[in-house]
Amino acid sequence: MTLINETLNETHEPALRSWVAYANAAGNDFPIQNLPFAVFRRKGTLEAFRGGVAIGDQILDLAAAAATDVFSGEAAPAVHAGAHDKLNDLMALGPPSWRALRRALSRALREGAAEQAALAACLVPQSEAEYGVPARIGDYTDFYTSVHHATNIGRQFRPDNPLLPNYKWVPIGYHGRASSIGVSGQRFHRPMGQTLPPGATQPVFGPSKRLDIELELGIFVGSGNALGESVPMAQAENHVFGLCLLNDWSARDIQAWEYQPLGPFLSKNFATTISPWIVTLEALAPYRVPFTRPEGDPQPLPYLDSETNRQQGSLDIELQVGLLTPQMRDAGQGDATICRTSYRHAYWTVAQMVTHHTVNGCNLQPGDLLGSGTLSGPTLDQAGALIELTTGGKHPLLLPNGENRTYLQDGDAVVIRGWCEKAGAARIGFGQCLGTVLPVRA
Amino acid sequence: MTLINETLNETHEPALRSWVAYANAAGNDFPIQNLPFAVFRRKGTLEAFRGGVAIGDQILDLAAAAATDVFSGEAAPAVHAGAHDKLNDLMALGPPSWRALRRALSRALREGAAEQAALAACLVPQSEAEYGVPARIGDYTDFYTSVHHATNIGRQFRPDNPLLPNYKWVPIGYHGRASSIGVSGQRFHRPMGQTLPPGATQPVFGPSKRLDIELELGIFVGSGNALGESVPMAQAENHVFGLCLLNDWSARDIQAWEYQPLGPFLSKNFATTISPWIVTLEALAPYRVPFTRPEGDPQPLPYLDSETNRQQGSLDIELQVGLLTPQMRDAGQGDATICRTSYRHAYWTVAQMVTHHTVNGCNLQPGDLLGSGTLSGPTLDQAGALIELTTGGKHPLLLPNGENRTYLQDGDAVVIRGWCEKAGAARIGFGQCLGTVLPVRA
Repeated sequence: MTLINETLNETHEPALRSWVAYANAAGNDFPIQNLPFAVFRRKGTLEAFRGGVAIGDQILDLAAAAATDVFSGEAAPAVHAGAHDKLNDLMALGPPSWRALRRALSRALREGAAEQAALAACLVPQSEAEYGVPARIGDYTDFYTSVHHATNIGRQFRPDNPLLPNYKWVPIGYHGRASSIGVSGQRFHRPMGQTLPPGATQPVFGPSKRLDIELELGIFVGSGNALGESVPMAQAENHVFGLCLLNDWSARDIQAWEYQPLGPFLSKNFATTISPWIVTLEALAPYRVPFTRPEGDPQPLPYLDSETNRQQGSLDIELQVGLLTPQMRDAGQGDATICRTSYRHAYWTVAQMVTHHTVNGCNLQPGDLLGSGTLSGPTLDQAGALIELTTGGKHPLLLPNGENRTYLQDGDAVVIRGWCEKAGAARIGFGQCLGTVLPVRA
Repeated sequence: MTLINETLNETHEPALRSWVAYANAAGNDFPIQNLPFAVFRRKGTLEAFRGGVAIGDQILDLAAAAATDVFSGEAAPAVHAGAHDKLNDLMALGPPSWRALRRALSRALREGAAEQAALAACLVPQSEAEYGVPARIGDYTDFYTSVHHATNIGRQFRPDNPLLPNYKWVPIGYHGRASSIGVSGQRFHRPMGQTLPPGATQPVFGPSKRLDIELELGIFVGSGNALGESVPMAQAENHVFGLCLLNDWSARDIQAWEYQPLGPFLSKNFATTISPWIVTLEALAPYRVPFTRPEGDPQPLPYLDSETNRQQGSLDIELQVGLLTPQMRDAGQGDATICRTSYRHAYWTVAQMVTHHTVNGCNLQPGDLLGSGTLSGPTLDQAGALIELTTGGKHPLLLPNGENRTYLQDGDAVVIRGWCEKAGAARIGFGQCLGTVLPVRA
């Protein structure tokens, strides 16, 4: 636990309060201990997007803040980098700059700070903002770090062979599509594609009938590595800027027909939705937990192992998926929770993803996005996809209003929420990741 | 054949000669009928990269050409777009602009052109140039369009099930890594990774011992499509800027262990090499050939079918792979040809790749790269990968100098060449795509 405490500092102090009143409200996602980053502009305007930091129900506009004299030393270039329309330049600066900016923000936003007057003029209410994808995502890689998901879904695609022999050795990952990643609020058309009906020998072409979600976390790469160089475990987290929520929409019928031998393609690349706010690894420090393997499972190969990873490689992030049907929306109801789990169940850690990805010399670049893969927990109600929650569509979910669902219907909206909470630390949240299914495009 | 003739115009006339003398030399890749695009700068300088057009042994510097008064009308914005450090802006303009620029270049570079004096000052010898990756590649997708490759490699990875049931229906593709794409001349370290030795139950970590090539063509997307929109077959080629040579380096031992269930990852993403010159689809028009399926094979589903595709969807591009070992290099020998084939054998066309990729609403963007997949022809000596040429390493290739090879050794260089040649049309070439294997990084 020494390692964990070393990463904690004054910015995590639970008693800290902000002069932005709502930041001190119980249960709010963005207290002064969080300070996540997004890009935003005022809704309905043609303003340039720029970086912002969430504080309570407000956004500190980094472009406006950069024009004040509040930030000095190492924080000054960081706040200027954060003022751009994408966060890549801030991400590229690396941990010392990120830490300096976090410390400066924390001090300036505290109750009683001398900077209050200058920064109060730089606030934009979140209710008046719209968000952009926070980085130019050069490459997007999706991992497969939940052994429970791999087993559950493997059972359906390969009943005789659910968990493949490589799973416990290799942090399985594959490349995804960067161009179709959108920010929370994304609305996308149900995809068309080829599917093989049960019992048929020839495929048919039409709308996907098995449209699913995948509850994931996204990991934004901060500073990159040169092509040919690898990032050892001891350095891996220095290349990570922060985490967001991610919904990897999946057309299961298209996937089943197309995925062999080269993996999912059109079943995934029509849309991927992420939350606007990136919660930094530093903000998450109080929620680190040991990385453990079940009794009898192999330990990671040495290149994927480190003392720090064993002691505190995992993160206890609570995750929840809500479904809002058109009927629920029309009745003024909120979304119904269909899954609750935690990131702590993942079989591979963030550091292991980074190190594995680069062990062959593959270069990561600032703004690259890594998906965790579906984060199903050990029990059925912790499953992060409908194909698991409904056992391949066999057992529909009964919703509180009497409707039921196997896969998504047109008009359905899905919202992912995430937060961290425990005694002795401030609760911090991720906001939400919302996406809506539109009918097939006419 | 009507369709083919409609796409031909004065720029393809075989009798055309250029005032750049070498462009008229027999066997040269870059006659006035070709006019491919690259980005370049003078070798060993810190000049900005800018677009260029190959003509004989020279490059027409588009930044310099844009500063003359040679280009007017629709060609003027095109030449300005081509002057940038990447070709994305030119690619985004679309076919009418590309055609206007091609016509203007063809006229200005012809023997007797009034523009000779102005443009002669804009030439840079190819021998003095170095090249860059020609576009910001937002996403890179690799297809699998050779049924011969799919069958040959399938036999080795799945002896009981070489060609999967989806192959003849789905233009199989998967997402690749954009960040590690380099231009001809790329040198990369042999990758490290996990492999499962024969008979072992636990993997080992170390250098790949089965480093291979994949002979491919790369297809650069020109104008894109919006997320949610699909590109029908009739429009597909309007979204294609041109083609280059591509070597999809592959670590077969890493691939065999990691690829299930989500496809190749670290076995591919350490390096991909492309040729600097992009030969436009218009330059290739004389080499269009009918797209045919073997007797008894299913016809493509309607969304992947069109009369134009059947009549002229395939391209007869001759392809050749050469291997140059350190011993051959030391002896002053040239590379040894290990494969000769043609792109006409592909099972799916360029138009089918574009249409399939977007049928679910996935958005392509200017500068995106599509790989054809390994272009093995029907016979063994036409195979585009060592794993096929050596039957999985069982039958080494005997090289002319007495050496033999199963997979690549450190110091080996591989060069891909491509050209089109037939009676009644000018021969055009792609230049070369060269890459060299360095030892594992210390």
